[in-house]
Amino acid sequence: MSLAVVASRNDVPTIEIDSDRLLADMRALADFGKVGSGVHRRALGSVDMQARGWLADRMRAAGLAVEMDGVGNVIGRTPHARRILIGSHTDTVPNGGWLDGAMGVIYGLELARAFMAAGGGGEIGLEIVSFSDEEGCFAALLGSHSFVGEMDRDAMLDRVNEDGVRLADTLEAVGLADKAAARFDPAIHPAYLEAHIEQGPVLEAKGLPIGIVTTIVGVRGWKISFHGQADHAGTTPMAMRLDAGAALCDFAVRIAAFCRRESGTHTVWNGGDIRLIPGAHNVVPERADYIFSFRDPSAALLDRIAQEVERLSSVVAAEHGVTSEAGQIFAMAPAAMDETLMGLMRDAAEAEGAPSLDMPSGAGHDAMVLARHVPTGMLFIPSIAGRSHHVAEDSAPEDIVTGARVMARALTTLCRTIALP
Amino acid sequence: MSLAVVASRNDVPTIEIDSDRLLADMRALADFGKVGSGVHRRALGSVDMQARGWLADRMRAAGLAVEMDGVGNVIGRTPHARRILIGSHTDTVPNGGWLDGAMGVIYGLELARAFMAAGGGGEIGLEIVSFSDEEGCFAALLGSHSFVGEMDRDAMLDRVNEDGVRLADTLEAVGLADKAAARFDPAIHPAYLEAHIEQGPVLEAKGLPIGIVTTIVGVRGWKISFHGQADHAGTTPMAMRLDAGAALCDFAVRIAAFCRRESGTHTVWNGGDIRLIPGAHNVVPERADYIFSFRDPSAALLDRIAQEVERLSSVVAAEHGVTSEAGQIFAMAPAAMDETLMGLMRDAAEAEGAPSLDMPSGAGHDAMVLARHVPTGMLFIPSIAGRSHHVAEDSAPEDIVTGARVMARALTTLCRTIALP
Repeated sequence: MSLAVVASRNDVPTIEIDSDRLLADMRALADFGKVGSGVHRRALGSVDMQARGWLADRMRAAGLAVEMDGVGNVIGRTPHARRILIGSHTDTVPNGGWLDGAMGVIYGLELARAFMAAGGGGEIGLEIVSFSDEEGCFAALLGSHSFVGEMDRDAMLDRVNEDGVRLADTLEAVGLADKAAARFDPAIHPAYLEAHIEQGPVLEAKGLPIGIVTTIVGVRGWKISFHGQADHAGTTPMAMRLDAGAALCDFAVRIAAFCRRESGTHTVWNGGDIRLIPGAHNVVPERADYIFSFRDPSAALLDRIAQEVERLSSVVAAEHGVTSEAGQIFAMAPAAMDETLMGLMRDAAEAEGAPSLDMPSGAGHDAMVLARHVPTGMLFIPSIAGRSHHVAEDSAPEDIVTGARVMARALTTLCRTIALP
Repeated sequence: MSLAVVASRNDVPTIEIDSDRLLADMRALADFGKVGSGVHRRALGSVDMQARGWLADRMRAAGLAVEMDGVGNVIGRTPHARRILIGSHTDTVPNGGWLDGAMGVIYGLELARAFMAAGGGGEIGLEIVSFSDEEGCFAALLGSHSFVGEMDRDAMLDRVNEDGVRLADTLEAVGLADKAAARFDPAIHPAYLEAHIEQGPVLEAKGLPIGIVTTIVGVRGWKISFHGQADHAGTTPMAMRLDAGAALCDFAVRIAAFCRRESGTHTVWNGGDIRLIPGAHNVVPERADYIFSFRDPSAALLDRIAQEVERLSSVVAAEHGVTSEAGQIFAMAPAAMDETLMGLMRDAAEAEGAPSLDMPSGAGHDAMVLARHVPTGMLFIPSIAGRSHHVAEDSAPEDIVTGARVMARALTTLCRTIALP
């Protein structure tokens, strides 16, 4: 699928952002839930709701019609029947960074404001969305799942946040329980654009200000459990042990070697969670749990690694005289970005004198949900030291501004050339 | 050092145990802190103190002079100026087994009772000890360390148990604060004997009722920490990661291979405690802590493994681009048992028709503390399925009785032949 374009329409204004206003709004939003240089703004909590109220006010002041929907999505629409979606999210992880999703939402606010200030002409307008609970306080990507109609609302209402409070009770408390969910409509929304910090070190390392996302990589998480026998670590001869921990370490080394051998350019994997039971230095581990996750733009490569996880865990268990279970605990399919939108942003970057890199996104974003339904484009700017989901997260102000200018230029072209739904 | 013996003295009675009385006392003691088929009797707690009171009463009833000393050691003495020490401990780990140290103490009670009932003649008597806090509620082997004079009492008084209560306050509460510590005296005590369940599977696997302990193995515990960098597990290319967890698993596999290659017959090792920080599946581990312990009768072999732990942890860290620290966190030297006492018990087992196995003890015991000061002998009986430190711990009653008979026969010979101090 690639977005169709038509000849240029001359009634669409050139969108030119105001960089001071952009940065000022970004900093104003960061005051909600400020924690040192970072932000703690958990979805649908009181601070997050205040921030949503502030955002709604800013949207109204920009001339947008604003709705806060039944899951907390904040949506600002220009007065056009057809609208390009631009969004991201304003909630954060606990003690997170000030940019993360907030930058993409304020980009949207500034783009719509500039568009309206320039007359807002033409047949296509903009719809700016701050998706609710991208970070999974109740459920990851809650707002975008709801928006595209992939959410079972009744099942979702029983989900609880880290304080054990149900989503249903939370929505009731913040006055959203009786509101409808806003919905994506292909007859209204021809494209979705999202800007985000990279959250990784690649652009900084290469000295490039813009990343054009090619694919949001797919991810698989597997839990591998080895079951042995707890024995006294002094009195049990080595030949009589069934050591689940030794099996886990052996598996970890060998699955990493497989991935190294078989991986593509963008394959990554991680074994960040190891639990030994009982976990005492003087007891042979009777059980060892390992979470192994791996990501790649190619679903076929993810399949091949998953098969090896299953095969190798059995082989290693047998060699150690223990048993194993291996099962997938989470999975997201790779989401390809739209070639036309990639090209528009690549050209816009070049025109802004900002060299760009085509790159996959190793992290998930609302764009991966939208991409299943609508041509989607995504732009990255560099993260200082690649840090994110941390109060130290930051980007250079000039990179923030450059990203917004590239978005403005690409959006202007898109509004002038996109085939109307 | 080997114990000197003299020609047989005819005034020493033959010690013959009463197996029903032995088992009845063992079961009576197991009622203090009973948890299902096991026992929860933490040192110097109220249940442990009740058990100590019961033991003191049984010792008195056997004709012994009883003392409970300033750390809770319960000591029963026959009226002889020189006395062979027989002991173990009656405290347990949390939800432990009913035999563990209790069996060796009740063996001592029954042996002294039989000895006194048979006239208690001769120049050498018995001194039965239940050492306090062998299991380390406050400090492992507290009672035996105190008894041999290796304990800094003032430093020890500030130690706290799992409830955070200081030893000083505990001793005050149970009325022992002002009591003196009973002390080993080479002019009084020519030998120490301890019986214990094996706490391992070897005797059962070989179908042998008696183990003659040759050495209590030495143990070394090392903590190896790898320091890398926390990064997003999706957005950081593999080549830019500093993965402390991958280094740990690699080290664990390679140190085990070294031990397998270099080990002696009795070498054992364990990596039962792994901690990854932050321990999340989607974050590259920035730190990984590993506790690696190893045991062997030979201090030289322990030295060789320790050197390799240090060398290999640096090598592995460098290969993974991370840093490492490795340091010894605990160590106990191997303790050789006395050859003469081993021979006496071996001969006694043969005379009882009970085949025996010379074997090291992979677990620590009060005997390892006593062995630094006095010729020490230790006897094992089989543990069902090798289980210990668990409510399921058990031994066959006939094995318990056989062990006591072998001890009685060895002790009779010892009393008749030992050179008086």
